[in-house]
Amino acid sequence: MGKRLAAEFLGTFWLVLGGCGSAVLAAKFGGDGNPLGIGFVGVALAFGLTVLTGAYAFGHVSGAHFNPAVSLGLWAGGRFAGKDLVPYIVAQVLGGTLAAFILLHIAQGQPGFAIDGSQAGAFASNGYGALSPGGYSVAAAFLCEVVMTAMFLVVIMGSTHGKAPAGFAPIAIGLALTLIHLISIPVTNTSVNPARSTAVALFAGPGAMGQLWLFWVAPFLGALIGGLAYKWIGSDQR
Amino acid sequence: MGKRLAAEFLGTFWLVLGGCGSAVLAAKFGGDGNPLGIGFVGVALAFGLTVLTGAYAFGHVSGAHFNPAVSLGLWAGGRFAGKDLVPYIVAQVLGGTLAAFILLHIAQGQPGFAIDGSQAGAFASNGYGALSPGGYSVAAAFLCEVVMTAMFLVVIMGSTHGKAPAGFAPIAIGLALTLIHLISIPVTNTSVNPARSTAVALFAGPGAMGQLWLFWVAPFLGALIGGLAYKWIGSDQR
Amino acid sequence: MGKRLAAEFLGTFWLVLGGCGSAVLAAKFGGDGNPLGIGFVGVALAFGLTVLTGAYAFGHVSGAHFNPAVSLGLWAGGRFAGKDLVPYIVAQVLGGTLAAFILLHIAQGQPGFAIDGSQAGAFASNGYGALSPGGYSVAAAFLCEVVMTAMFLVVIMGSTHGKAPAGFAPIAIGLALTLIHLISIPVTNTSVNPARSTAVALFAGPGAMGQLWLFWVAPFLGALIGGLAYKWIGSDQR
Amino acid sequence: MGKRLAAEFLGTFWLVLGGCGSAVLAAKFGGDGNPLGIGFVGVALAFGLTVLTGAYAFGHVSGAHFNPAVSLGLWAGGRFAGKDLVPYIVAQVLGGTLAAFILLHIAQGQPGFAIDGSQAGAFASNGYGALSPGGYSVAAAFLCEVVMTAMFLVVIMGSTHGKAPAGFAPIAIGLALTLIHLISIPVTNTSVNPARSTAVALFAGPGAMGQLWLFWVAPFLGALIGGLAYKWIGSDQR
Repeated sequence: MGKRLAAEFLGTFWLVLGGCGSAVLAAKFGGDGNPLGIGFVGVALAFGLTVLTGAYAFGHVSGAHFNPAVSLGLWAGGRFAGKDLVPYIVAQVLGGTLAAFILLHIAQGQPGFAIDGSQAGAFASNGYGALSPGGYSVAAAFLCEVVMTAMFLVVIMGSTHGKAPAGFAPIAIGLALTLIHLISIPVTNTSVNPARSTAVALFAGPGAMGQLWLFWVAPFLGALIGGLAYKWIGSDQR
Repeated sequence: MGKRLAAEFLGTFWLVLGGCGSAVLAAKFGGDGNPLGIGFVGVALAFGLTVLTGAYAFGHVSGAHFNPAVSLGLWAGGRFAGKDLVPYIVAQVLGGTLAAFILLHIAQGQPGFAIDGSQAGAFASNGYGALSPGGYSVAAAFLCEVVMTAMFLVVIMGSTHGKAPAGFAPIAIGLALTLIHLISIPVTNTSVNPARSTAVALFAGPGAMGQLWLFWVAPFLGALIGGLAYKWIGSDQR
Repeated sequence: MGKRLAAEFLGTFWLVLGGCGSAVLAAKFGGDGNPLGIGFVGVALAFGLTVLTGAYAFGHVSGAHFNPAVSLGLWAGGRFAGKDLVPYIVAQVLGGTLAAFILLHIAQGQPGFAIDGSQAGAFASNGYGALSPGGYSVAAAFLCEVVMTAMFLVVIMGSTHGKAPAGFAPIAIGLALTLIHLISIPVTNTSVNPARSTAVALFAGPGAMGQLWLFWVAPFLGALIGGLAYKWIGSDQR
Repeated sequence: MGKRLAAEFLGTFWLVLGGCGSAVLAAKFGGDGNPLGIGFVGVALAFGLTVLTGAYAFGHVSGAHFNPAVSLGLWAGGRFAGKDLVPYIVAQVLGGTLAAFILLHIAQGQPGFAIDGSQAGAFASNGYGALSPGGYSVAAAFLCEVVMTAMFLVVIMGSTHGKAPAGFAPIAIGLALTLIHLISIPVTNTSVNPARSTAVALFAGPGAMGQLWLFWVAPFLGALIGGLAYKWIGSDQR
């Protein structure tokens, strides 16, 4: 169990360091209107590649969840033991938090760096209303996170199904996370992962902390929906 | 059959939500000239990844068509039973329409959001002439949709051929859709999929509805050509 | 043999339609400085995806060369029969030319479209000196095309080697072509493929035709070098 | 052994030619603010694709390290013989240096090309402080290179583990390098590879040479950490 938790810890560390790191360090390089920066496409790619690479590295150790909502959804879908839920989630939040801490120290190496928690997406935090990158309402943000997480679980359950081609699931799952970011960064800065949201909210100030509830509730709700839906679709077909 | 139709419904839901959703929500983020938005490259990637991920999730359930033209072309190519054509197409159109409905509710969460159906590409709709992103004529639009759909079917038929490497078809097919968008978004906003065109046209206003015929006729014609062409090329070689 | 030539014809058709098509139709969408257009990254991706998708569709039929330099290099490397060289090359040039012809008709559907053969990269043509996108000299262009084609052949020979993992070669080869474009579009608009260069030069005017020799000689020279080099490296190891 | 060293030589040649080449020739095409250039996303993709393609071509010959830190980390992780370390590293540095030499000759084919060694990232060199693209401190640069290289080794060790799906490691490893560049180009112009740093520093002037120590020490330290960490995590699980 120690090695499984270490894998979840390191994998979530990689997810937050890579995904949030690319957003904080590289998305807007050179300032507004400079096309050298990686933009939302680059951030979307980075999040997905953390999972694609982490799943090939750790899939055979821990199953490579790196996300409390994924663990919950797989439990709902009958693929993960309930007794492992809490330890997995604790390891994920701790790994993500260490990544945010290290990311902060790298970012602070740039003269003039500061986190302005009143800005949407500060330190790659998630948010709605005034803290949504595109100013989306709390209702739109909630709906978006629920639907995106549900479909994420559907892809995870489906691509790891016994009848799916073996070995390709990390590609499907990682690129599903890229896709989800391509759609929804403007809405909530994209969470679908409570550990990722919590890790950076701890450093982004009271605004992000005050909205953190949504990024636990909506992904959890979506994950239950997605896990249960695929459990039915993927069950024995006659 | 219920589960197969559910898979087609959800897969087409994902295609429209992800492909059209990225176009509506993220393509032009921040306004004209802002390189943070995902642009046509991001939209092209999003469409392709909906199919790549959906095909790994649902391929073993329904074959993962998510597109009436694909179902028709596979029938022409001898890979799909004619009696399943109508139920598949109905499920695809319904799934896409639900996605457009949910996308509309997310998009409306942004203050000031409105669909101006007189603009090319409004709500990710397809069009020609005044409703083509680049102002392309109806003849160019028709030719483009026919050729792109034909080659899409060729890639689908070829990569799922018994002699092709097993398991890789979702990568080839999904990235073929990305490629098709990289080429042809300026011409028609890229359809090659009547369900996708219908789903958003229902919400985009009379202009898109009036041009919808082309995005059934041209993809269907192209799919027949592609399906029959590969049927010959891929048949037993001596 | 008919089906093999049809596969080479259609595959090269796809390469020129997709690669050159994305460059002509979508690279600079909206004019200078508009980040909606797909830029060099999008064109590089498109060229690579034509080969990735075409190789999964046609690899088991013809070997999926789609490029006279690849056919020559594989012959030099001992993987392709010399008697098939000329028919393959003829099919490739014809397929590419048909694609350029269709692309022209799509492009002409936009009001105001015209080919200005005095501009570098006109109708996606290759060039050096005044016809190089970045104004690179003929010597730099020659060196670049030789080295890029040599490494392309090395990747092709290596990833299709009997000891390489089976089924992955189309990914490696397609993305190698993407990589080559990411590097060298500024130098020559990237050829490494005489059929692709010839196909669009026929429509791009006397400037491109006058420089076409380089895009046969340099890729052929590079392909021989790469094919022979890998033949030694990949031979039985003790 | 000769063929293994030739593979490491050519593979590192490809890494520097493709990764640094895309940065020098294509990243800022057309000048500041021109979105045609490939930007950091394109450079990140290029670096990753050199490894993805090189690993499919040479993995079965030499193991496809192309990087002294990778060789060291694999030795620390128990996957590589210590007696091969020095020959591998020499071949890697020589291959990279030849690539930088050829790249220089291509780049010089553009009128007005000059290397200004006082600029951050000159000739794709790595740096910190005044020579960091984003002006990051030496401490931030060191921390970043250590962590990135450590996670690179974790992905390499994990995806080539006996229990990981066979054949996918080049995808995971190549795209991990893309991810690392998406995060850290602004900090150090991204090294994680002493051979790559050395190759271009030789041509970039005294500034880059004076900072080269960091791009041997930090990647080596990170590689040892990553190699040892995964050795424990991936060892037999009970």
